[in-house]
Amino acid sequence: VVGFKSYLGLIEPLIRDKQVHAFSMTQEVERVNAALDLALSGKRTAVVSGGDPGIYAMAGLVYEAVRSRSAPIEVVVVPGISALNACAARLGAPLMHDFCAISLSDRLTPWDLIERRIEAAAASDFVIVLYNPRSRGRATQIGRARELVLRHRAASTPVGIVNAAMRADEEVFVCDLGTMPECDINMKSTVIIGNSQSFRRHGRIVTPRGYGNKYKV
Amino acid sequence: VVGFKSYLGLIEPLIRDKQVHAFSMTQEVERVNAALDLALSGKRTAVVSGGDPGIYAMAGLVYEAVRSRSAPIEVVVVPGISALNACAARLGAPLMHDFCAISLSDRLTPWDLIERRIEAAAASDFVIVLYNPRSRGRATQIGRARELVLRHRAASTPVGIVNAAMRADEEVFVCDLGTMPECDINMKSTVIIGNSQSFRRHGRIVTPRGYGNKYKV
Repeated sequence: VVGFKSYLGLIEPLIRDKQVHAFSMTQEVERVNAALDLALSGKRTAVVSGGDPGIYAMAGLVYEAVRSRSAPIEVVVVPGISALNACAARLGAPLMHDFCAISLSDRLTPWDLIERRIEAAAASDFVIVLYNPRSRGRATQIGRARELVLRHRAASTPVGIVNAAMRADEEVFVCDLGTMPECDINMKSTVIIGNSQSFRRHGRIVTPRGYGNKYKV
Repeated sequence: VVGFKSYLGLIEPLIRDKQVHAFSMTQEVERVNAALDLALSGKRTAVVSGGDPGIYAMAGLVYEAVRSRSAPIEVVVVPGISALNACAARLGAPLMHDFCAISLSDRLTPWDLIERRIEAAAASDFVIVLYNPRSRGRATQIGRARELVLRHRAASTPVGIVNAAMRADEEVFVCDLGTMPECDINMKSTVIIGNSQSFRRHGRIVTPRGYGNKYKV
């Protein structure tokens, strides 16, 4: 079992009797290569990922690294609960209609493309899920994203922020585009911005399944 | 336990000793109202949904129906594996970068808005996940969606189709925008269209984590 140290800690009872290889946070490529070495040595090897390995997570890196090995390695991805599934559940029902997931990290993606995506999503009334809204080195992107969405959506549009979803230190905030700068958005946050139809009710966000002219509960 | 008959069948061993209320496919509002009646009568009530109840599924309808009841009802959403999680896992790693989920059902949403979303997603290089691509009454939408994406993306762009993901009759196809019309897309399908960077390899689709100029494995 190969993974990021603190994620392995979360599943310690499940892997107690396994050979465990724990890595620190930034060593993603090292982790994957260690896993492939183990697999090629004949061991059934699991790479553990936070959330869903198939959504902005380790599955892609595994496939990319397999490509550079000469021997064939069989890969199976086991899906899981990504931040968008977990945060939507905590916030009520914000993802009942078309949505986009956008990472605000510009480490591997040009920032102008990220801006273009935010603007396109805002203009065509997608619910917007923001991954990696902020980190130690990236403080301004979330404010800029908010500005872009405000060009197309009312300040009263519901916004949900979930920090450390489903963990012991989970926090859930519901606000709106206008008051969003007052909320604590940090490295553990996922942000969901409602569409034009989303509404707040008893501290939850609900996006209706359709548009009023076609629709009645 | 309240739910759609055939979904309840899938979990029969788990609910054998419960009071079960099975409904047929189109009775979504009836299902939810029956569940709320049971909850208000003092019973702990579960509404079972396919996939993730929080993604295009029953959670929203429950919250909308709770709104019309005078007595308060506590709702907890338990997240699950939506079609996008399951299909991504089966196809390799297509969702390693920003993506949109778009339902092609125009039953509750104006078709022109759906077209606008497809075009916006295609133009800004989102990976695109299409829910409800086709049904008995809706045969033309998927072809139109393909045309719109082809305005912005090469015919060689990878396309994955998963029918009945994670069920006994699961089928997985990998093709591209050019050959997509030859694939079997039906009521049980979810379609994932890669972005400009996605590639096919040994029958899987991988979307790299970033863009080449910023990025090296």
